[in-house]
Amino acid sequence: MTGGAELGLPEPVLIIGSGLIGTSVGLALRRADVDVLVSDVDPASVDTAVRLGAGRALDPDDVPAVVVVAVPPALAGSVLAEASRRWPQATITDVTSVKESVLRDAVAEGADPRRLVGGHPMAGRERSGAAAALANLLDDRLWVVTPLPESDVEHVRRVHRLITITGAMPVEMSMHEHDAAVALVSHTPQVVSSALAAQLIESDDEAVRIAGQGLRDMTRIAASNVDMWTDILTANAGPVAQVLDEVAVRLQRTADALRAVDAGDGAAIGEVSGVLSQGVTGQGRIPGKHGAAPSAYREVLVQIADRPGELGRLFTVAAEADVNLEDVRIEHVMGRPSGLVGLSVRPDAGEVLMRVLRERGFEVRG
Amino acid sequence: MTGGAELGLPEPVLIIGSGLIGTSVGLALRRADVDVLVSDVDPASVDTAVRLGAGRALDPDDVPAVVVVAVPPALAGSVLAEASRRWPQATITDVTSVKESVLRDAVAEGADPRRLVGGHPMAGRERSGAAAALANLLDDRLWVVTPLPESDVEHVRRVHRLITITGAMPVEMSMHEHDAAVALVSHTPQVVSSALAAQLIESDDEAVRIAGQGLRDMTRIAASNVDMWTDILTANAGPVAQVLDEVAVRLQRTADALRAVDAGDGAAIGEVSGVLSQGVTGQGRIPGKHGAAPSAYREVLVQIADRPGELGRLFTVAAEADVNLEDVRIEHVMGRPSGLVGLSVRPDAGEVLMRVLRERGFEVRG
Repeated sequence: MTGGAELGLPEPVLIIGSGLIGTSVGLALRRADVDVLVSDVDPASVDTAVRLGAGRALDPDDVPAVVVVAVPPALAGSVLAEASRRWPQATITDVTSVKESVLRDAVAEGADPRRLVGGHPMAGRERSGAAAALANLLDDRLWVVTPLPESDVEHVRRVHRLITITGAMPVEMSMHEHDAAVALVSHTPQVVSSALAAQLIESDDEAVRIAGQGLRDMTRIAASNVDMWTDILTANAGPVAQVLDEVAVRLQRTADALRAVDAGDGAAIGEVSGVLSQGVTGQGRIPGKHGAAPSAYREVLVQIADRPGELGRLFTVAAEADVNLEDVRIEHVMGRPSGLVGLSVRPDAGEVLMRVLRERGFEVRG
Repeated sequence: MTGGAELGLPEPVLIIGSGLIGTSVGLALRRADVDVLVSDVDPASVDTAVRLGAGRALDPDDVPAVVVVAVPPALAGSVLAEASRRWPQATITDVTSVKESVLRDAVAEGADPRRLVGGHPMAGRERSGAAAALANLLDDRLWVVTPLPESDVEHVRRVHRLITITGAMPVEMSMHEHDAAVALVSHTPQVVSSALAAQLIESDDEAVRIAGQGLRDMTRIAASNVDMWTDILTANAGPVAQVLDEVAVRLQRTADALRAVDAGDGAAIGEVSGVLSQGVTGQGRIPGKHGAAPSAYREVLVQIADRPGELGRLFTVAAEADVNLEDVRIEHVMGRPSGLVGLSVRPDAGEVLMRVLRERGFEVRG
């Protein structure tokens, strides 16, 4: 008896698609001794996944009890339908970042909706492919489960079990709720970051040189993979277009208000401060670490020399002060080998940390 | 003979406005033993600045040789003009984040353009007021200098000297170049962050719960001070409105293209991938740490337990490996006391760091 049976998950589990997510799911299931099969249109990816220990290659005689489709959104519908037809008893799920269009396509192409349950693990890396897979990529991550109205409860339960075994935490949503949520918190921010970064193409070197941390943070994800994101955005086109429209209108209104202020219309200032105030309120809704409010921490800034060991010494001293660091950020200083490190701690620990760091020779900025 | 005379800077230097920047400039000049006077409409702020050591309170008989105006943009023009009239020999400069409207107002209100030289230090903190001031806030920071066409070269030279004495690095630009640059790299990103965060106000708790690092990074600055930013944006209304228009048009076009794709127009996919590609190109223009390309580093991910000392142990081990950390980021995991730390190092140091961390029991994700 292998791990899946002990944990109430029927076996074997077949993972179709040996990319980053598919291979990581395989590694996580194998860690729990679940019997895993892998397949991919690219034999080299299967070899990599098998060599990493993500499962054994699918044999034509194998009959999977659960199938996880981990292929790009544009292909997922057909692959789900094909799997459903080929293994008429299996639970069929996927890990695609868009749910309604993918699952609708799957059913239209013949997938049995009673055995079909959508899924989307909230995990990823900047690298892709089987070689970048990690057994613990999914640990502690949320994994959204989107049953169809027709999904049989036993098949939904199996998907929950599979998710828990990988180390992730299942969260159930409707397909529509999921797609609207990712359009808002993931897909639209991607487009906005790209659109903002695109403005830099024509700018002077001097302008880019005075860029601060704000612009850096806002354009970090603009460096993401173009093909992958084109596929995701087009698969969730409707919900993303709606949020993009709303953001564009807000920016356009702010631009109009600024021009009105410039032309002497003092009343338009309220429109400008309004969007900033709404931003403060909206930002405050994002949960902080472990769900704590972000404002619950105090940041102590320390100026450090940029040489091996200096960060290590800083954190060692912080540890000796018995102060737990809630967050760390490093702000780089252009042109000189030094940096400013922000240590976030609980408010009652701020004074202790500052005193200890100063005693040990650190330049604390308060 | 005090510090200013030795360094070729005429004294005393008067700083009008005892806020974060004004008081920090005073502290930095006093550190070099320059004779500094401070004044503010609020006597309590002057008391704080004097107590911190940012200078002595302005006496009616004092005749400053250099005046630094460090008041909000909406007031700066009048204060510059008043200072220019009151001390007809003095060099007059400011630290306002907008240059053209402020300096134009100053001249319109009677400032002598030959002695007027604009300035804008690229430094700040999330806190404000004299009490948050730091003697080293300006160290290694760029400080933009914007002479007027009429500015006398000797007055421009004095402002350069003052900046160097504070520890900052002067960079000369025209007023127009400066305002276009900050509209692009600072003011527009602020509005975009606020507009994106504003979208979260009406969203479901579940949607916000699945937010990842991308949204967090993009909305961090949305938490900034509303009044201060309203003042900055309205003072630089024209240039900001222009960039906002361009970003809004790009978002609107992407939304339209997504709807066209949804309606079956495959050709519109090129518009979607186009904005993403432009984002990659634009993002690549932002200089990395010390001007190095951001892609020059490799990120090693380490899973750590969230307890005192764990970060310290990580950095101590990294230091023992004689590997210099170029950057650090901590990615928090919802719901469980653990975190993922990303250590950026030069590519040739990646393997060494991973091996040493693994030997010392860290869970390295590669």
